[in-house]
Amino acid sequence: MSVLSHIDGKGEAAMVDVAGKAETERTAIAEGWLVTARETLALIEDGAIAKGDVLAAARIAGIMAAKRTAELIPLCHPLSLTKVSIGFDLRPERPGVHVEALAKATGKTGVEMEALTAVSVACLTLYDMLKAADKTMVIDGVRLLKKTGGRSSGGF
Amino acid sequence: MSVLSHIDGKGEAAMVDVAGKAETERTAIAEGWLVTARETLALIEDGAIAKGDVLAAARIAGIMAAKRTAELIPLCHPLSLTKVSIGFDLRPERPGVHVEALAKATGKTGVEMEALTAVSVACLTLYDMLKAADKTMVIDGVRLLKKTGGRSSGGF
Amino acid sequence: MSVLSHIDGKGEAAMVDVAGKAETERTAIAEGWLVTARETLALIEDGAIAKGDVLAAARIAGIMAAKRTAELIPLCHPLSLTKVSIGFDLRPERPGVHVEALAKATGKTGVEMEALTAVSVACLTLYDMLKAADKTMVIDGVRLLKKTGGRSSGGF
Amino acid sequence: MSVLSHIDGKGEAAMVDVAGKAETERTAIAEGWLVTARETLALIEDGAIAKGDVLAAARIAGIMAAKRTAELIPLCHPLSLTKVSIGFDLRPERPGVHVEALAKATGKTGVEMEALTAVSVACLTLYDMLKAADKTMVIDGVRLLKKTGGRSSGGF
Amino acid sequence: MSVLSHIDGKGEAAMVDVAGKAETERTAIAEGWLVTARETLALIEDGAIAKGDVLAAARIAGIMAAKRTAELIPLCHPLSLTKVSIGFDLRPERPGVHVEALAKATGKTGVEMEALTAVSVACLTLYDMLKAADKTMVIDGVRLLKKTGGRSSGGF
Amino acid sequence: MSVLSHIDGKGEAAMVDVAGKAETERTAIAEGWLVTARETLALIEDGAIAKGDVLAAARIAGIMAAKRTAELIPLCHPLSLTKVSIGFDLRPERPGVHVEALAKATGKTGVEMEALTAVSVACLTLYDMLKAADKTMVIDGVRLLKKTGGRSSGGF
Repeated sequence: MSVLSHIDGKGEAAMVDVAGKAETERTAIAEGWLVTARETLALIEDGAIAKGDVLAAARIAGIMAAKRTAELIPLCHPLSLTKVSIGFDLRPERPGVHVEALAKATGKTGVEMEALTAVSVACLTLYDMLKAADKTMVIDGVRLLKKTGGRSSGGF
Repeated sequence: MSVLSHIDGKGEAAMVDVAGKAETERTAIAEGWLVTARETLALIEDGAIAKGDVLAAARIAGIMAAKRTAELIPLCHPLSLTKVSIGFDLRPERPGVHVEALAKATGKTGVEMEALTAVSVACLTLYDMLKAADKTMVIDGVRLLKKTGGRSSGGF
Repeated sequence: MSVLSHIDGKGEAAMVDVAGKAETERTAIAEGWLVTARETLALIEDGAIAKGDVLAAARIAGIMAAKRTAELIPLCHPLSLTKVSIGFDLRPERPGVHVEALAKATGKTGVEMEALTAVSVACLTLYDMLKAADKTMVIDGVRLLKKTGGRSSGGF
Repeated sequence: MSVLSHIDGKGEAAMVDVAGKAETERTAIAEGWLVTARETLALIEDGAIAKGDVLAAARIAGIMAAKRTAELIPLCHPLSLTKVSIGFDLRPERPGVHVEALAKATGKTGVEMEALTAVSVACLTLYDMLKAADKTMVIDGVRLLKKTGGRSSGGF
Repeated sequence: MSVLSHIDGKGEAAMVDVAGKAETERTAIAEGWLVTARETLALIEDGAIAKGDVLAAARIAGIMAAKRTAELIPLCHPLSLTKVSIGFDLRPERPGVHVEALAKATGKTGVEMEALTAVSVACLTLYDMLKAADKTMVIDGVRLLKKTGGRSSGGF
Repeated sequence: MSVLSHIDGKGEAAMVDVAGKAETERTAIAEGWLVTARETLALIEDGAIAKGDVLAAARIAGIMAAKRTAELIPLCHPLSLTKVSIGFDLRPERPGVHVEALAKATGKTGVEMEALTAVSVACLTLYDMLKAADKTMVIDGVRLLKKTGGRSSGGF
């Protein structure tokens, strides 16, 4: 097999065959940042005190996107997530919103793409809701923190 | 209207009313990075010489995701894209893959979320196809470079 | 755990963790009504005699929607339905169309949302196809009739 | 043309031809109820004071579903919504949650199905999040309140 | 521009820029065959006399697929269909089911892919519903019959 | 049960109940042709030498469509594919592109519709990318070649 596991012998893309893999419980945790102006954090916080809808919308969007990962990422295997959750942390020292997502499934493949997709779409949703107020935002540092359940578990 | 344009007077999320806005031609260009190990770039390049499928898959995934932006981002308005294109640049000095996406539409709202979604999903697809070879990758610097056609055109 | 099982300790929405739950065979039956004018029932019946397309379209729409429940309802777990069927009954005494849906799956969570979604979308489809003829229609009484296979089986 | 506008001369389903219709601004308002136990309203209200996530999730789900109406309802025309908003009102006298949705578009067909779909999916989402606490809930009274912009405008 | 209009100067896939094209009314008619055993046609016909559900399901599936063409075909532009209809003809002389689809839209690009997608998915749906009875079926002759409204109108 | 397994006793469409079926490993291989002019094959081949994007886009589109089969075909059961791959062969003697797709899953139902859907959407994508250069193309001979894992395995 080639080092790039999605590319078969002839260099062509294909979903990797996972039929022979055991079903195990898989988890993945990913993180990312929406880097903002400091005043933008204050706007979110004020909104959060009143109704929390900015973070609530991003949380729902990220969870829903995690469930559609295999529709978005061409060679991802579809799998039945058993849990997705997303946490937000307003960090004035960056300044920005820290996003962390946990995905869980019992399956033949890992759930790291689901956790990364949840973080990415949560960040995009925050960006969309804040872009009228802040033209400087950047989505940064989207990466896997930890995965368990497959051959290559561990923190990263 | 509140500063956060998606939050109405009572602090509740809603799609902003754009019925009264004129249809103009809108463009947006966004960029982002998949930061990789230097050897990973070599793997892509070798694949690219043979068949190019890694970048081709990411390009197709990003274009398809741009068309589904309004399904992913809760308060985005649906709009009919007239063009989407995505370019990749292997940059050994970072090291990483630089991704740039252009989105175009004739509509009442801007297309920056479409361009940013294209970049994000292209990066996620690269990540998925390369993750067996590289455990250190990070999606970084996803941001808007330029938009034209609305009230607040300009480079960022 | 809070009484509202989808809200975690901090009051934030998350998909409930079902990883530890056993896979059992689950069924759910839901019902609902499209309340119409009496003449509307006659129109359906005449159509039904000729080709049956009004009810056939609503049946297909409801079945397809059941399969997409986890895409529509943010905190629903995706699951692999093993059967969906929908029955219609024209009831002149109401007057209206009685809709009943059965959903089945082998999984870690119940299928009541799938059955309720099938009923709701079947009613919406009937509404859409009949709205040119009847301006008074109401979707009413959408509820769970029975579920089996989980902790809280039973009729309702 | 037959009275049932979606059924063509031979009794077969088809999307009605709207090519010749003018593009006008269309609005529709729909309402519906999630009838609950009185204690369930208190649970929502307590949640609402803390974080509001139950109603926020249902609002986001309803808005997103409105954008996917043409995917769910077989003979609905796709259209580009310019605004969707959803309001909730906890009514102890029913007792239940009153849901109201507004949809707007500039197009050749009305947006009543979009408003009704938003109400239905918002109710289903509330049902899903509350079903662990309340086994008696019913979705009731989903109907069109008002539409403007087409041939048959008016309150209902 | 290259002869293959979706491939840009560097040989990379991109959605063709249609921003400068005029919005005109476009129609396309496509056809195709599900070639079956002769007895299979009799089964459909008997079903058709009773309830018509086999053809009705295929018709609905084809119409719904036409609306999702831009989600399935990577470089297709999204457009707002104004009409889709599908006709079936049982032809014992082939033997097989002849499928014809009409798609219409007011837009900047043609609707031939929408008509072809409608035919293909209608054939796949018939195949799925008949495959328990007939192992010899083939989808054949899916092609464009006619298009109007663009630069290259005409029958094919 | 009726011969048409998707039609229940009353002649109405329903998803067949597969709850009682065993989970076994299923595979299906399907094929099809995009019949083209001979010069069109040369265009693909030249593109293939440069970047291969025409076939790469069709491959990705076919794989992604296979994962969405249950969304497109009304009575198909959702299942978790463990592998999908698609091969193309330029055949000047036809002339045309021969497409072959393999689908695999561990499940209660077969994967023939997934393989056939992959072939169909791959052909449609090729058609879309080549239609500016060739007005004579036809999708032909889409059929099942082989299936294993169910009651009726075997070549066809």
